[in-house]
Amino acid sequence: MATLGEIAAVSGTRLQGGDRSAVITGVASLDRAESGQLSFLIHPRYQHYLSTTRAAAVILSPNDAAVCPVPTLIADNPHVAYARAATLFEPVAEAHEGFHPTAWVHPTAQIAADAWIGPHCTVEAGAIIEAGVQIGPHCVVGEQAIIGEASRLVAQVTICHRVRLGRRVLVHPGAVIGSDGFGLALEQDRRWLKVPQLGSVQIGDDVEIGANTTIDRGALEDTVIEDGAKLDNQIQVAHNVRIGAHSALAGCVGIAGSVRIGRHCMLGGGVGVAGHLTIADRVQVTGMSLVTQSITQAGVYSSGLAVEPNRLWNKISARLRRLDELFRRLTALERTIKRQDGSV
Amino acid sequence: MATLGEIAAVSGTRLQGGDRSAVITGVASLDRAESGQLSFLIHPRYQHYLSTTRAAAVILSPNDAAVCPVPTLIADNPHVAYARAATLFEPVAEAHEGFHPTAWVHPTAQIAADAWIGPHCTVEAGAIIEAGVQIGPHCVVGEQAIIGEASRLVAQVTICHRVRLGRRVLVHPGAVIGSDGFGLALEQDRRWLKVPQLGSVQIGDDVEIGANTTIDRGALEDTVIEDGAKLDNQIQVAHNVRIGAHSALAGCVGIAGSVRIGRHCMLGGGVGVAGHLTIADRVQVTGMSLVTQSITQAGVYSSGLAVEPNRLWNKISARLRRLDELFRRLTALERTIKRQDGSV
Amino acid sequence: MATLGEIAAVSGTRLQGGDRSAVITGVASLDRAESGQLSFLIHPRYQHYLSTTRAAAVILSPNDAAVCPVPTLIADNPHVAYARAATLFEPVAEAHEGFHPTAWVHPTAQIAADAWIGPHCTVEAGAIIEAGVQIGPHCVVGEQAIIGEASRLVAQVTICHRVRLGRRVLVHPGAVIGSDGFGLALEQDRRWLKVPQLGSVQIGDDVEIGANTTIDRGALEDTVIEDGAKLDNQIQVAHNVRIGAHSALAGCVGIAGSVRIGRHCMLGGGVGVAGHLTIADRVQVTGMSLVTQSITQAGVYSSGLAVEPNRLWNKISARLRRLDELFRRLTALERTIKRQDGSV
Repeated sequence: MATLGEIAAVSGTRLQGGDRSAVITGVASLDRAESGQLSFLIHPRYQHYLSTTRAAAVILSPNDAAVCPVPTLIADNPHVAYARAATLFEPVAEAHEGFHPTAWVHPTAQIAADAWIGPHCTVEAGAIIEAGVQIGPHCVVGEQAIIGEASRLVAQVTICHRVRLGRRVLVHPGAVIGSDGFGLALEQDRRWLKVPQLGSVQIGDDVEIGANTTIDRGALEDTVIEDGAKLDNQIQVAHNVRIGAHSALAGCVGIAGSVRIGRHCMLGGGVGVAGHLTIADRVQVTGMSLVTQSITQAGVYSSGLAVEPNRLWNKISARLRRLDELFRRLTALERTIKRQDGSV
Repeated sequence: MATLGEIAAVSGTRLQGGDRSAVITGVASLDRAESGQLSFLIHPRYQHYLSTTRAAAVILSPNDAAVCPVPTLIADNPHVAYARAATLFEPVAEAHEGFHPTAWVHPTAQIAADAWIGPHCTVEAGAIIEAGVQIGPHCVVGEQAIIGEASRLVAQVTICHRVRLGRRVLVHPGAVIGSDGFGLALEQDRRWLKVPQLGSVQIGDDVEIGANTTIDRGALEDTVIEDGAKLDNQIQVAHNVRIGAHSALAGCVGIAGSVRIGRHCMLGGGVGVAGHLTIADRVQVTGMSLVTQSITQAGVYSSGLAVEPNRLWNKISARLRRLDELFRRLTALERTIKRQDGSV
Repeated sequence: MATLGEIAAVSGTRLQGGDRSAVITGVASLDRAESGQLSFLIHPRYQHYLSTTRAAAVILSPNDAAVCPVPTLIADNPHVAYARAATLFEPVAEAHEGFHPTAWVHPTAQIAADAWIGPHCTVEAGAIIEAGVQIGPHCVVGEQAIIGEASRLVAQVTICHRVRLGRRVLVHPGAVIGSDGFGLALEQDRRWLKVPQLGSVQIGDDVEIGANTTIDRGALEDTVIEDGAKLDNQIQVAHNVRIGAHSALAGCVGIAGSVRIGRHCMLGGGVGVAGHLTIADRVQVTGMSLVTQSITQAGVYSSGLAVEPNRLWNKISARLRRLDELFRRLTALERTIKRQDGSV
């Protein structure tokens, strides 16, 4: 619960047509909000719900404010304003301190006095857990790993030996940081010999890492995720990769070894990037595309193909197989015509 | 072990040519079955094994029964009949009650008397574990989460706070239900601001969720998986998604935020669905296809391309890059011909 | 730390121009190596760093040795030689024996005297843990599972009931071996009925399994991963699959049910293989390709499409939809020309 005045202050919005002391009980979408609830208009897709909303107040842009039938909280960037306002309605996660009785912490680990080590956690020799860190149930923090100030491991997270997390890093359940890279040398007899993975992983400040995402340790130097980068669920980051600051990777992305991704990049869901490539700053790649060469210019790139009815698609893909033939037939025809044109 | 009579009763099949009291010791495929073993014929692919099978009895359709050299258990739907019969040969998982001594259960959690909380589990404040629930080793059940009657979490499962599971839900190891959605607002300075994820996840009855699958909590309203939906391994379901009843999603599928998938849909392995789309009931999408627009008609849809020898594929994909040029050249040629036709 | 002489012995290389007693303190890439560090030249991509390297010695091929300004360790296969040398610089993982006090081991489990069961592990009834096995924190070993000699489960690994691992198997965090296959029978009323998964999983010797990879148990017979196969992170292996010896699968690969993959195969990242196919020995499939038919010949296969600038790609994919029309227009034109040619 919060008053409209508090919401305006936290969200940095200008309240118009409402009472600063009015109490708001929760948040809901425009079409579902009941009296007493806060709503928001971020995407034009939902604008048609505005005229009939029953929300107590709506966070929106100056342009949309004119046609809103209820009190407004006006922001140049309503998405950011909403994100700030919504923090007032999050369930307050009780901050814990100390160790849960079922946690196991090696005597040489250094744990800040106000940090929390949750149920059934394991913190191994020489690990450092800095101030304000919250480690949820069933996490493993390996030998000499460092968890920076105010970071949070939600649950079932594995941080391998010597991995270093910055400050305010948020890691979701099932994520694995610092597993061995996939380094293999082919022997004479075509067996694979494991290449020791001597590097580690370095995660910057304010990074978020999604559920069941995996980030491998470097073969030699460290795998690096720079400040403010955001990784969704089920992402695979191979060894020696560097992901630039404030880049965002959607679910199921796979990044092969030694790739360098610039700052402020956005990779859509399921994108794959082949090994040893460099991607410039501010590059966007749309969902399920494959990057096989370095990208040197900011811009939007794609190679995903959208579904068609199966019968049509079967025809198309059969034709595609004959595309080379098609070009050759066309070229032959062009020559014939040219000859005819000459002869006519 | 079970008799042919018991198998016929459980599977709802008609025994023909066999002795109801004959003892069956196990199940095997047609070509591998030894005397005393039950087999089945579901797919025509395996029909040629029928004439030489040494199985003690075969579950099959009326049409196939005529040419079967051994006793038959006849069913209109042999696959369903087999699934029922096979339950007689599952190792009986010992039903446990109470708490394993290494489990940690918050005093305010409510645990049904006949439920089981396995080794190294954590059940947090206010969680509700209903009758007959079996929670295997190393699971986390978050604050105020509800695990419905007779559900089973196999091992290493994470159920986040306030997530609700229906009855007879089966969750495989490593699955994460209720992790934060990937909600980010872009600030003026191009940093990402986290949008609080205030919703939860609601799982219907008889849902199965595969190993290492992740289902994010809603940003505002709940992410919903309806009754009888089946999700394979390594699937990513983003926030606010709704998956209709009795739909089946194969491994590695990725569903972006706010997608609505109808009832009785089937998505093949590795399929991707872009955000905010609606997919009608009874839609099938074949493996590794990408859905970028809503699908309003039941039917089969595809966009996957099958492999070719690499050299040929390199030619094809180089040609594909010039497809626009090809169309333009063809159109020019058509005009030339038309002109010639007119002039001739 | 190791001397050049020790490194030459372990790596099987010939030292040239250096002092066997010189002490090497670590390993680094050619451009970063400081005095006292070992480096290597495996890929021509890095050859230009050779002339200016400050490394104490470089592992390289005979051809490259001629132009190396520092002592050389010469090998016919420098990658293999480096992999061997690098083992000298791995942090020595302290070998443990016995049970961590927080581990829970069922009284009927058989644990070799020199095996180690780490913090918060669970080993269930009848499991067998052979000599020299190291089980890291938070692993689950199910009923009657067998972990072969000298194998290592790094952390948070789930080995389900009756799964058998060979010798020297290495399993990375979050991997799940032996989860139920996705076996479903469609009932009359279009509900899904679970098909009991009665098989198990059999893992050969010297197999490596990546973080968060999942391998389902067989429906009837076992899923099999043969000796020396290497699986990267986030891979999905469905029920009844067989992966041949010494094959290597990169991250995010998905293998549908009952597929047989040959020996010495290499699948690139994100490759998908449809169900019931057979892939011959020594087949390579490049990243993000889809295999929908059996492959009977060794060779390299592809179907991945590389990104283009989004505007160009939108044109291409719109044209692709009309590829069938294009072929028909071309054929019509060819007929017209032929007729004209006849008539002229």
